[in-house]
Amino acid sequence: MAKWPLPDPMRRALALAQEAVVAGEVPVGAVVVKDGIVLGEGYNLTRTDHDPTAHAEIVAIRRAATALGDDRLTGCDLYVTLEPCGMCAGAIAHARIARLYYGAGDPKGGAVEHGACVFEQAQCLHRPEVYSGIGEGEAGKLLRGFFSERR
Amino acid sequence: MAKWPLPDPMRRALALAQEAVVAGEVPVGAVVVKDGIVLGEGYNLTRTDHDPTAHAEIVAIRRAATALGDDRLTGCDLYVTLEPCGMCAGAIAHARIARLYYGAGDPKGGAVEHGACVFEQAQCLHRPEVYSGIGEGEAGKLLRGFFSERR
Repeated sequence: MAKWPLPDPMRRALALAQEAVVAGEVPVGAVVVKDGIVLGEGYNLTRTDHDPTAHAEIVAIRRAATALGDDRLTGCDLYVTLEPCGMCAGAIAHARIARLYYGAGDPKGGAVEHGACVFEQAQCLHRPEVYSGIGEGEAGKLLRGFFSERR
Repeated sequence: MAKWPLPDPMRRALALAQEAVVAGEVPVGAVVVKDGIVLGEGYNLTRTDHDPTAHAEIVAIRRAATALGDDRLTGCDLYVTLEPCGMCAGAIAHARIARLYYGAGDPKGGAVEHGACVFEQAQCLHRPEVYSGIGEGEAGKLLRGFFSERR
């Protein structure tokens, strides 16, 4: 029985999460795509860059916005290996991301299906379509491996 | 009768908000201070920098973290002219800001006393002390002037 193949951008996000492990960063990767073309990608860089805002999603969004020369990523999709936190969900709304695809859910820090449920707030000015659980097995394995080594 | 003087960092944040008007940006300014020394400051740069994450708070936090060479701004205070949104409140928690002082409340976009009330979520791993209404008159006047000219 063939396994359903992951979409290319999620496979790339998982590869980026693996690079984060090598860099000693929490293994989360993210890719911004428009019409099949990667506009920005990245992994968690909070320690490397001394930047508490440098989660994978923020890194990928900032790079894509620079590439487009626009602070709005209209029509763009974001693939990320972990459920975004509140900061990143806010950035996704500000950036006008059209579709959000994420891997593992994050009961401790996620703010899409957990906690603040950012996109369900009446205040939220832009709600992306959201698809979860894409590559969650692989994403969760990377995260568990990373944190078990540090305990 | 003498008016209660605003703390220096909030006066600086208001001056930065005024600079934002000149730059055609939404007038919000922010300053990160530790032991009376300014470590980072900025105003909204979303259009100028093509960066949807470049709210005043994020700009000031990133600059302060670069200055300190640390992604945690332990013991630092953040002064901002407007109630932080969900993205910025999340960044404030990630950065471990000790005390947050803000001017005007923001029922439409704020996430401290409105909407997601980020610091009241069970998930929130770090809660700053919060002081609101400091310079709210001046901050609100700048924002109303900016938006009324654009209608």
